[in-house]
Amino acid sequence: MQETRKGMLLVISGPSGAGKGTLYGRLLQADQTMGFSVSYTTRDPRPGEAEGKDYHFVSETEFAQMVADDGFLEYAQVHGHHYGTPLAPVREALERGQNIMLDIDPQGAMQVMEKAPECVSVFILPPSFGELRRRLEGRGTETQEEIERRLRNARGEVALMDRYQYLVINDVVETAYQTLQGIVDAEKQRSCRYFPVVDE
Amino acid sequence: MQETRKGMLLVISGPSGAGKGTLYGRLLQADQTMGFSVSYTTRDPRPGEAEGKDYHFVSETEFAQMVADDGFLEYAQVHGHHYGTPLAPVREALERGQNIMLDIDPQGAMQVMEKAPECVSVFILPPSFGELRRRLEGRGTETQEEIERRLRNARGEVALMDRYQYLVINDVVETAYQTLQGIVDAEKQRSCRYFPVVDE
Repeated sequence: MQETRKGMLLVISGPSGAGKGTLYGRLLQADQTMGFSVSYTTRDPRPGEAEGKDYHFVSETEFAQMVADDGFLEYAQVHGHHYGTPLAPVREALERGQNIMLDIDPQGAMQVMEKAPECVSVFILPPSFGELRRRLEGRGTETQEEIERRLRNARGEVALMDRYQYLVINDVVETAYQTLQGIVDAEKQRSCRYFPVVDE
Repeated sequence: MQETRKGMLLVISGPSGAGKGTLYGRLLQADQTMGFSVSYTTRDPRPGEAEGKDYHFVSETEFAQMVADDGFLEYAQVHGHHYGTPLAPVREALERGQNIMLDIDPQGAMQVMEKAPECVSVFILPPSFGELRRRLEGRGTETQEEIERRLRNARGEVALMDRYQYLVINDVVETAYQTLQGIVDAEKQRSCRYFPVVDE
C-alpha cells in the first residue's frame, strides 16, 4: 500500500486560561508528525531567545512590508509590538506533507480560518468560568484588572465557539489531550489530505 | 458541565469484500451511542426473520408510495426486489441525539450523501485488489462470474473514494476498527452536533 499525504494545519485556540498552551505542548511532544511555525515579531529578543528558533525578529518596516505583501496567516499587535504567523513557510510545509500546529488566541484563529479555510480548528473550553478565574489567578502573572478583562473576553469568545470545527473541554488535562490527539488522528484519514493507492 | 448533542449519521461504505460489514458489526457492538436503521424491503421474509427487527416487509405498492413521498434516504433494486433506508425514523433518531450507522454499498452511500450532506462518510479500502479477490473467493457465496463483476465494480468505486470524507484501509481488522472508532469519537466533538454549556 503506497500512500501520499498533504499536511494538516491544526489551529488550537480558546480563551486565555483554558489550557491551550499545555495541550499544544503535549501534542507537539507526543505526535511526531506535528510541527510548528516560528512567528515574526517586532519586539526585541529576550535573553536566551534565538533568531529563527523562538521568533524571527524583524523591524516595524520589515513587518509592515510583509503585511502589505499579504505574507501573514494572521497577525496582531500586543502591548505595542507586532506578532505574526508567516504564510509561505506554512504553505510549503503543508505541501511537503508536514503537519503544522498553531497555538493562537481566538482573534488570530478567526484570521487563520479566513485565510486557510482547509485548516482543522479546535476550540478548548474551560469546564466553568469559576475554574477559568482560578487558573488565571493561580498563574500570578496578570494584574486583577487584566484577569477581569480576560474573563470578559472569555465570555465573548465562548459565545463564538461554533465558528470552530471541534470543541474540547479541558477539565482533566490528560482526558482533553487524548480527545485532541484522537481528533488529529481522525483528521489524518481525511480524503482531502490522505491519498492511498490500492495495490494490484 | 451541561451538554446537549445532535446525533451523527455515519455512512460506512466500500467495495464488496472490503470488510465494511465486519467493521459495522464491531462498532455497533462496542459503541453504546451507535444505533442502526431497519430497512424496508419488498422481498419475502426468510425463516426466522421478524417484521420490524430484520426488515420492514412491504408490498411493491407500499414501497412505490414511499418513493413517491420522498420517504427514503436511499433505495435500490437487487435481484428484482427493492430495499430502502427510511428517512423519517433516521431524522427523528438524530434529533433525539441518537447516532445512527448505515452499512451501505457505494451507490446507496452516494444517495445518502446527497440527501443528508451533514452525514459522516467513511470509505473502507482493501489493501490490494488481489486481497479483495481472495476475500470474495474465500466467502464461497458468489459465482466466479459474480466475483469478476464485483472486482470490476470495486475499481470504479475505489476511483471515487475522494467523494467520502474519511478513508480507512482494512488490512488488519482490529487496526481498521480502532481507526474507525477514532473517527467516530472525533466526530462526536464537532461543534455542529455537540453543544456544551460552560458553567458559571
